[in-house]
Amino acid sequence: MDTRLNCELISIGNELLIGKVVNTNASWLADKLTKLGVAVKRITVIGDDLDEISSCIREALSRKPSLIIMTGGLGPTYDDKTLEGLAIALGLKLTVHPEALEMVKRKYETMGESLTDARIKMAKMPEGAIPLHNPVGTAPAAKISCESTIIYALPGVPREMEAIFNEAISKEISLYSGFKIAEHSFRIVGVMESALAPIISKVKEQYPEVYVKSHPKGTEEKPIIHVYLNAFHRDGNIAKRIVLEAAEKLISLIEDSYGKVVYPLENSNA
Amino acid sequence: MDTRLNCELISIGNELLIGKVVNTNASWLADKLTKLGVAVKRITVIGDDLDEISSCIREALSRKPSLIIMTGGLGPTYDDKTLEGLAIALGLKLTVHPEALEMVKRKYETMGESLTDARIKMAKMPEGAIPLHNPVGTAPAAKISCESTIIYALPGVPREMEAIFNEAISKEISLYSGFKIAEHSFRIVGVMESALAPIISKVKEQYPEVYVKSHPKGTEEKPIIHVYLNAFHRDGNIAKRIVLEAAEKLISLIEDSYGKVVYPLENSNA
Repeated sequence: MDTRLNCELISIGNELLIGKVVNTNASWLADKLTKLGVAVKRITVIGDDLDEISSCIREALSRKPSLIIMTGGLGPTYDDKTLEGLAIALGLKLTVHPEALEMVKRKYETMGESLTDARIKMAKMPEGAIPLHNPVGTAPAAKISCESTIIYALPGVPREMEAIFNEAISKEISLYSGFKIAEHSFRIVGVMESALAPIISKVKEQYPEVYVKSHPKGTEEKPIIHVYLNAFHRDGNIAKRIVLEAAEKLISLIEDSYGKVVYPLENSNA
Repeated sequence: MDTRLNCELISIGNELLIGKVVNTNASWLADKLTKLGVAVKRITVIGDDLDEISSCIREALSRKPSLIIMTGGLGPTYDDKTLEGLAIALGLKLTVHPEALEMVKRKYETMGESLTDARIKMAKMPEGAIPLHNPVGTAPAAKISCESTIIYALPGVPREMEAIFNEAISKEISLYSGFKIAEHSFRIVGVMESALAPIISKVKEQYPEVYVKSHPKGTEEKPIIHVYLNAFHRDGNIAKRIVLEAAEKLISLIEDSYGKVVYPLENSNA
C-alpha cells in the first residue's frame, strides 16, 4: 500500500495538444515531486477551453488526490483561462484579488507601465484563493483548497513555474510529505550574474540534488546578487549537510576568482 | 463548430510519472495528427497499473472521440499491461492472436530464438483486435473499434511507435480526415505580451477559425514574442489564404502601434 501523498498534474495549453511544445513542465514537476516523496498518479493535458478545464479539474477532484498542480493559462491573453475554469469547477466567483493586483501593479510600476484590463486580468482569482508571488515574471500563481485536496495553479512559462515551485511550494509539500528542507542564502556584491553563471553550473553538476538560484538585485554597474540554495531529505541533517557543502563549494569558487565578495543577507527574504 | 476528427492520446508508463522520461511520444503524435487534420483534445499519462489503464480507457470512450491512440506497455515484461487493460475496459477476453503470434515467432526465428511465455505474451490481444506489424521491433501494435471510436495501441519505444504510425496509421487517418493545415509564424521584438493581448483578441474576433498563439521568449523587460497561427480546411488553398489574411491583419495592427517590430523567425521552430 502506497501511503505517500499523491498528486495529479494538469497541463493547460493548445500548444501542447498540437505538438508544438513538449510537456517538459510535467516531467520537471514529476521529477521534483517524486524526490519530495510524492506519488504522481496522473498527468492530463487539455486545451485552452473553459469547459475542458473545469471538467478536467472536477474529474481529478473526484479521485481525491492530496494535490493537484496545474500549469499554464495564467497570462494576460484571451486564451489564458485556467483560473476562470478553476472558479467554475469549484463553484466560486472569479474576482480581482487585492493582494494579487498589488503584485501585478508593483511589477508594471517598476517598468513605468500602468494597469490595463489585460494586466488586471492576471489578478482575477477564485474567491478564497491565495496568490503566490512570481519572483521572475508577472502573473501570480494561485493556491486554493477543496475538501482534502490542495490545488496550485502555476504559470506555463517554465522558468516562472520552476521558480514559484522551488521557492514557495516545495517547502510546503515537504512539510506534508515528511521530507525536510534545508536552505541557505547569501549575497554577492560586485560580480555580474553572467560571470557567476558558469560557476553555478559547475556546482550544480557536482550537487544535482541541490536547487541553486541567483536573483539579481542591483544594476549592471553595481551588481548585487542574492543566491538561494535548497535541498530535501527525510533526514534533515543530511539535507542541511548537502546544502552547506554545496554553498561552501560555491562560495569558495566565487572568492577564488573575485576575492571577498560574499556576505550574509541583510534580511531573510532571498 | 470544429468538425474535424478528434483524438485522445493515452501514454502509459511509470517512467513518465516519475519524470524520468519526457513525453515526446505524445508531442510527436500530436504534431503528426494536427498536420493530418485531427484535433487532439486530451493527453492522459498514467502508470503501469491495470485499474488505471482500464478506467482511463473507459473515461476516454465516454467522451466519444473518433480515435484513441495509446502508447507504451506492449512489451514482454510483467509491467506491460496495456492490452490486458484494454481487454478489461472493453469487456473482451485477452487471447493469443494467431497472426500476432506469427509476427512475434518470425521475429525471434530471424534471431535464432524460440518462443517463451514472455514472448508469447506480446501476441495476447483483446478478442477482435487487429495486429499491426512492427517494422523495427518485436511487439505488434493493435487496432480495435468500440462503437464509433477506433483505438490504436502502439509500443512506447519511440522509433517503433513512429514507424508503425508512419507506415500504417497515418494513411488510414488522412483517408478519414480529409483536412489540410496551413501555418504561419513570425517574431515580434520589443512589444510586451500584455500589450499584444488586445490586438490578438481583435484579430481572433475577426478570424475565429484561425488559431493564434503568442509564445514569450524574452522577458517582460526585453520582450521577444513568437506568434504562431494555423487553420484547417478541406481545401488547402483556402486554409492558406485564411491564415495569411489573419497574419497580415495582425502584423499591420501591431506595426500601426509599434512601428517595425515584426520579423521572420530565425528558424522554423516557433
